[in-house]
Amino acid sequence: MTDLIARREALLGPNVPTFYDDPVHIVRGEGVWLYDAKGRRYLDCYNNVAHLGHCHPRVVEAIAHQAAQLNTHSRYLHEGILDYGERLVAKFDHGLSQMLMTCTGSEANDVALRMAQAVTGKTGLIATDNTYHGNTTAVAHLSTRRPPIGGYPPHIRRVPAPDSLAPLGGSPKAQAKAFAANVAQAIEELEQAGHGFAGLMLCPIFANEGMPGLAPGFLDATVNVVKRAGGLILCDEVQPGFGRLGSHWWGHELLGFAPDLVTLGKPMGNGHPVAAVVARPDVMAAFRNAFGYFNTFAGNPVSCAAANAVLDVIEDEGLVENAEAVGAYALGLLLELRHPLIADVRGLGLFFAIEFARDGLPDGAFCGRVVEAAKDRGILLGRVGRAQHILKMRPPLPFSRENAQMLATTLKDILQEMPA
Amino acid sequence: MTDLIARREALLGPNVPTFYDDPVHIVRGEGVWLYDAKGRRYLDCYNNVAHLGHCHPRVVEAIAHQAAQLNTHSRYLHEGILDYGERLVAKFDHGLSQMLMTCTGSEANDVALRMAQAVTGKTGLIATDNTYHGNTTAVAHLSTRRPPIGGYPPHIRRVPAPDSLAPLGGSPKAQAKAFAANVAQAIEELEQAGHGFAGLMLCPIFANEGMPGLAPGFLDATVNVVKRAGGLILCDEVQPGFGRLGSHWWGHELLGFAPDLVTLGKPMGNGHPVAAVVARPDVMAAFRNAFGYFNTFAGNPVSCAAANAVLDVIEDEGLVENAEAVGAYALGLLLELRHPLIADVRGLGLFFAIEFARDGLPDGAFCGRVVEAAKDRGILLGRVGRAQHILKMRPPLPFSRENAQMLATTLKDILQEMPA
Repeated sequence: MTDLIARREALLGPNVPTFYDDPVHIVRGEGVWLYDAKGRRYLDCYNNVAHLGHCHPRVVEAIAHQAAQLNTHSRYLHEGILDYGERLVAKFDHGLSQMLMTCTGSEANDVALRMAQAVTGKTGLIATDNTYHGNTTAVAHLSTRRPPIGGYPPHIRRVPAPDSLAPLGGSPKAQAKAFAANVAQAIEELEQAGHGFAGLMLCPIFANEGMPGLAPGFLDATVNVVKRAGGLILCDEVQPGFGRLGSHWWGHELLGFAPDLVTLGKPMGNGHPVAAVVARPDVMAAFRNAFGYFNTFAGNPVSCAAANAVLDVIEDEGLVENAEAVGAYALGLLLELRHPLIADVRGLGLFFAIEFARDGLPDGAFCGRVVEAAKDRGILLGRVGRAQHILKMRPPLPFSRENAQMLATTLKDILQEMPA
Repeated sequence: MTDLIARREALLGPNVPTFYDDPVHIVRGEGVWLYDAKGRRYLDCYNNVAHLGHCHPRVVEAIAHQAAQLNTHSRYLHEGILDYGERLVAKFDHGLSQMLMTCTGSEANDVALRMAQAVTGKTGLIATDNTYHGNTTAVAHLSTRRPPIGGYPPHIRRVPAPDSLAPLGGSPKAQAKAFAANVAQAIEELEQAGHGFAGLMLCPIFANEGMPGLAPGFLDATVNVVKRAGGLILCDEVQPGFGRLGSHWWGHELLGFAPDLVTLGKPMGNGHPVAAVVARPDVMAAFRNAFGYFNTFAGNPVSCAAANAVLDVIEDEGLVENAEAVGAYALGLLLELRHPLIADVRGLGLFFAIEFARDGLPDGAFCGRVVEAAKDRGILLGRVGRAQHILKMRPPLPFSRENAQMLATTLKDILQEMPA
């Protein structure tokens, strides 16, 4: 273990993130479980990439079978990308009927920004002030958790993120109004500065901001502001997508608005590097005609086979229904947790957040101790929020009631042993 | 076929590139061969992704085996990324001892640009005026074949690419001097404009520029200019890397210069989406300390298993030696081709270029007809160059003497039937 850490530092350099003070050495995955080198098992309550559970045999089989048949670029004709893409876009309304495949959510968001610029002929982009949309240079400009080298360029504006501890102002309705007003002001600033306004990128449930439990309709006023200004709503569904929310396949359906495009990533291939943008034909055409985009690995037959198997399993195993049912059950258990520092417990399907605050201020240190203690007891969690004070839980969708009980019981034990 | 084309247009939108006027419908690959839906086979002389041959069983087996074991992010400890990375960096000199993994060559080049900016604290970048380094927003700024939406930003400068038909000036030595002088002038312009100079990105054999057959030492003067100005040499080895040149594992070894980092892509996983930057520790540290880079899919155990199997096969099957021996044999055959429009025939290992010109001017139309005719006769080729007038041939490395004979004989027949 010490040896692996030393080898990492020698090979990968400094400041390469690992999870946990004493990182785990994972060698095997199966369903909701990860196993370390000593055979100890951990309940994975964090990894939304392994959407169907780790190493789902149908995805493994689809990859193995197709990799032995053909794995090449999309400049030749192949049914794989068409069969998958037609099935995928059928899951969207609002005229989102075309697809562009990439290898990562970062690449998808990078394309999405250019789509907005191609449609509008403007460059100005807006995101929230506490978010992450990926790691390319252009997308990192929006990602406030990881400030870009050389600072933020002038065509980017940031608006205050919805936050349950630091509300934008007043009642839920007033907060929605304040968010829209801040977007309107940012648009005005971009236009004054000569950049013009191309689009607003956001995760519809504000997952990286801490999933602040917004009601349907929260974004209606904002969407109106954006559309009136001629800009696009760029909806990053990398976290809420593919049925995690239980009630809906996509986050924007829950919030009830019509995006101009959506981007997809992590869960799409259950670990295989595949991602996509789904857009209206007018948006796709503006981009395709302005820019000769080609991505060597994207849309290859193996990626499409993996992604297609993911849809098969979600449907055949009823995983969206499971996310709704087990999600509600698990949320019920989490809501029974009692601790003086718990400020809020909330959930959407199999996506949960527990917020810790001390005297009304976020308590990231306490949240960090909970994550470490859970790891020591065999449960893998993450955290998020302005002060990393929010437990973030996104287990694989086959999460069971028994898994939920184990999670809730472990958290209860930990909290009992950790006075405020 | 018509149906597939119609489905592509409906799903993917306009202006999505396919190869050939009448695109092929490929359903299976094996070794150097691709098979269409009617069972017709094509000799693949273009696809450098299938470095070991299509669907190499050892890579398929490595992917299938690891995908069934574990496929998760690199924030947990795992031997896969370490075993692979240590083996990879051992193949480099010049202190290039650290690695950062990505999913695509575009992502690797996007990171490379930021590494140069992190080391120097400057933003100015230089590339040639006829190149392609990938598809992210930042990298597309360097890619002259595909102009960026909104035009080139002011911190990018382009210098005339080496070109066998439009020499930079005079003898090979004079051309090298002219290239260096143009880079020096671009650096001066970037400094005058307040951007400063971060780095020069280039493919060491100028593959996308048409592989103009440069002698070792061509870049020596340029490298001196760049280093004196405090900038970095960002060496894009996506095409020449992993032994394709036969004489060397990497293009910069052939040219004989010391890059500050190299980027790797297409052949690295024989089709699996995996790519990397290999850099000196000081370069890696500057980037890692300036920017919290994390890439969800990159360096996962499956990608590393695929990439490791690629190294196994290259070594066990003697593919670098084969590239050198069969490459020399094939070049000999190609040099025997006779046609009034052939301006030059050149090769480096299993990378060949045949340049067509009419009255000293590039003849892209003729080259296009050769590509189409070869496809009709069962040979897949591509083309490149300022006027798309250069046949580009990069077959999988197990290319045999028999394959080379088939390629040369087919080209001979085609050229005989196509008067100037």
